[in-house]
This record gives sequence, C-alpha cells and structure tokens, in this order.
Amino acid sequence: MEFTKGHGTGNDFVILPDPDGTLELTPDLVAAVCDRRQGIGGDGVLRVVRAARHPEGAALAGAAEWFMDYWNSDGSVAEMCGNGARVFVRYLLEAGLAVPSGAAFPVATRAGLVRARVEGEELAVEMRRPRLAGASIAVLDGLALPGTAVDVGNPHLVCPVPAGLELAALDLNRAPEIDPVIFPTGVNVEFITPGDPTGGTDGYVRMRVYERGSAETRSCGTGACAVAAVVLRDAGRDTGVVAVDVPGGRLVVTQTAQACWLAGPAVLVATGEVAAEALV
Amino acid sequence: MEFTKGHGTGNDFVILPDPDGTLELTPDLVAAVCDRRQGIGGDGVLRVVRAARHPEGAALAGAAEWFMDYWNSDGSVAEMCGNGARVFVRYLLEAGLAVPSGAAFPVATRAGLVRARVEGEELAVEMRRPRLAGASIAVLDGLALPGTAVDVGNPHLVCPVPAGLELAALDLNRAPEIDPVIFPTGVNVEFITPGDPTGGTDGYVRMRVYERGSAETRSCGTGACAVAAVVLRDAGRDTGVVAVDVPGGRLVVTQTAQACWLAGPAVLVATGEVAAEALV
Repeated sequence: MEFTKGHGTGNDFVILPDPDGTLELTPDLVAAVCDRRQGIGGDGVLRVVRAARHPEGAALAGAAEWFMDYWNSDGSVAEMCGNGARVFVRYLLEAGLAVPSGAAFPVATRAGLVRARVEGEELAVEMRRPRLAGASIAVLDGLALPGTAVDVGNPHLVCPVPAGLELAALDLNRAPEIDPVIFPTGVNVEFITPGDPTGGTDGYVRMRVYERGSAETRSCGTGACAVAAVVLRDAGRDTGVVAVDVPGGRLVVTQTAQACWLAGPAVLVATGEVAAEALV
Repeated sequence: MEFTKGHGTGNDFVILPDPDGTLELTPDLVAAVCDRRQGIGGDGVLRVVRAARHPEGAALAGAAEWFMDYWNSDGSVAEMCGNGARVFVRYLLEAGLAVPSGAAFPVATRAGLVRARVEGEELAVEMRRPRLAGASIAVLDGLALPGTAVDVGNPHLVCPVPAGLELAALDLNRAPEIDPVIFPTGVNVEFITPGDPTGGTDGYVRMRVYERGSAETRSCGTGACAVAAVVLRDAGRDTGVVAVDVPGGRLVVTQTAQACWLAGPAVLVATGEVAAEALV
C-alpha cells in the first residue's frame, strides 16, 4: 500500500493514493496506520479518490475531480479538516493530479466543495466563516480565563492570556475545565497573546490550543480561524487578515464578508510503501 | 534519503541504510527525522553502516560486518538498545545483508559485539546480565511501592504492585518519585504483576515501565531483563526463562550464568524515501 506523509504547521497526515477507490479502508486499518509507534503515525488519513469513484463524492464529481476522504486517527470519519485539506492539495499538486494556476480550484469533501488556491510557497483553503457566540470561561490550574465562544462548524473558546502571564508557561498537560452547560460535547480551547507584527497583516497573535478529547496540538486550522475572528472583533473590524503563530508555524487567516481563508505551509515529508500485513 | 520504519514490541525506530558511511548524520537531522509530526517519527535512528566504514565500528570489522550506529530521538548517540538491536537485525535479514542460520551472529555496536539469533518468527539479542543491587522505593500518587534496584548497564527499579491493585489502574502520566541519593541520574521504574502462564517458561510477569527523563513507553528491553532477574530471584533461581508481557507485546528473557538473551517480535512496517530538505 503506497503512502505519503505530510504535515501543515505540525498537523500530520498519512496520505493514501487510491484514485479508483479500490482500497478497503476500515476503521481498524486507519487506526493501525495512524499508530505512532506500531504504524506510520499521523493525526489522520487522507485518502485521495476520484470523486466519481467514492459514494460520498459522486454527487460532486461534476464540480471537483478529487474527493478528500478524511479519517481521524481513531478510525472515525470526519467532514473536513483545514490543515488536512491544505496537505491534500499539496499532494494533488506534487503528484501532478492538479495543475497550479492563479485561480482557486475545488476539492470535494464530506462538507461539500472546498476551494483551494496556491499562494506562492503556501496553500490556502476556504473555511466556514467563524460565528462569534458569546462569553464563557476556561479554568486552568485554578486560574479563570474569560473568553469568547466561537462556532467554526466545531466549537471553540478563545481566551486571551492576562498581561504578566507567559503563553509558554501555561500547563496544558491537563485539559482546561470548561462549562459543560455551554459546551455539552466539549470545546477546543485556544489561549492567545499578542504576536510579532512582521508580515503586513491587520492583526498578529500567538496561540496554543488544547483540542477536545485529545491534548495540546501543534496546530488547529479551525482554531486559527476562531482566533482571527476574535482578534478582528477586538480591533473593531469584521473583515481583515490575521497572522496566527501556532507552535508548528504561522497560519494566515483572511476573513471576508462571506468566508474565511486559511493559508500556510503544507509539506510532504516522506513517501513509500507500508506493509499492511505488518500492522496490528 | 532511503528509510525503513520498524518496531520491536512498540519501541520504534527509523532505519537509515548507509552501507558506505557517506550519510552526514547530525543531531539536528536525527531529531528532525524522529519528530513524530514534522518528520517520520521514532524512538531513535538506526544507521546501518559497514563496520569497516564507521570510525567507531572499524576496530570490530574483523568480527562483524555491520555496525549499529544508534541515535536517540533527541539527537544524542547511545551505546546499545535491546529492542533497537532486534529491529536492526530484522532489517539486515530482510535486506539480505545477513543470512539467517541456526547460529548466533555478531553485530558491532558502541557497546562492543552483540550476538543475535533467529528464533522462528522472533529475534533474540544477547544483553548484559542484570546485577541485583539492593532495595529502594518508588512513590506513585502517594503510594510507596518497595522495589529492587537492578543494574543492566542502565539503572532500573523493579516494583511489584501489591495484591488488590490493578497494573492497568496505575497513573503513569507523572513520573514516580524516586530516591535521588540512590539514583542520582534517575532510574527507569518497572511495575509488575504476575502474568498469564502460557508459553512454557519458568516465570510469567506483566510490566509497565516509566523511562527516566521520558514517559511511560510500550516496551523497554533492559527493563524486561531487569524484571526477569527479579522474578527468577523471587523464585529462588539464578537462571531460567521468563515471559515479560509489556504493553507492546511479549518479550522472553533467558538468563544464563553469563548473559541474558532478549527475544521477541521485530517488525518492519514501511519503507520509502524521506525528503531531507522538507524536514525542519
């Protein structure tokens, strides 16, 4: 079974090319491939299938050639993943399955068509526009941090770190406590401080994120979009460009009246063959 | 740069074939390759070099054809690694660089010659004989667990879990507290309970291990040897065969009057090329 491994700002994926949709991908196989010690290791699997050859992609086959069949590392399927989509598009370009041009081109996903575009060395994908949704609080090590709830298709809580506290000093080895009434299915919590103003954007912010049901991660695409929406609101703006420095690199979020573009590096690191029979 | 990824009971390694010793391996490159999200991911790198072509292997080139150039994931070099040596030998056999026979054959390492042998589907390597070294205590979540200190070239503390306490219930998210006077450079702590008597060995034990300066791991070759020495002593024996079930699988330790053989599965999972220029 052929594979490529890649990452976008430290969110990593195992890409499985399967143009004709003949690979029998099961939850167990996905979990085994994503196992970081007994498999290849990754936050998820991106199967590359022609939209026409995938039951969930066929309806979009007239508009997009390729379907991003995204699986989480636990073997469940998911609708969309911003950094995953960026890595998926990098693979299409490097494999010659898509031709870079100045225009945006569509990729089919379980969340519908997602537009992608090449921006120099970086790749951008169009995300859902974040929706600000009121105030809440995260409690970390006994410290209550007020924040803003944001809906980006999945729930986020964006908490500025008070002056005098270092972002790097936060202990994210344990999950922050959140309000189970406001977030009955949990929430991704972003902690932010002002960033370095280098790059000509409207806003600059540094963030760390604790993903629900998981742990601290090096990057979170929807989290960066949620953070940008809060930064723009705090600047009295509804649209604009925000640089979001995550532990895995820099993401740039462009919020327009209708949408939100997530841009940043997407890198392919290795390619080869996995011995499926050696996986457990 | 060619690579193969493999593991022995969940201790995983990136194998870099470099028969002529031309690869410029640096601590930064090793750390980047072993990075689990922005690289391939592994507990260490095993460079496969002809002993005659490596400065530290040349003196052993008359006795062994291949030198195991072992690096930890942080970019430091190490003398030996039991599970690493088993995976190294699996690579030699599958790549046709060594021919399996009934006899043991030598591999050159920084710790000198290490003998290896094929045992059916499994691979065994000869380790240093563990030396029992007195009593000490590990404190876990306020609970004091008496144990036995064991020297296997590196320090271990083997603590039986009291009846009524489940091995699986121990919280190893935090390091156990140990006596800094007895273990000034830290110690690997093994927690053990009786195992399932299936396999015809003299002893059966289950273990979990907290590796010093690291975290809980799925396996530890020297830890399994330390545990076997304690199990045999408690049975009034000085030699014998002990099955040690670690979270990553079963290791079988054979202690003789002179040495200690570590046997178990060693599996190659994937092979391909890594884009060294894409690593950070």
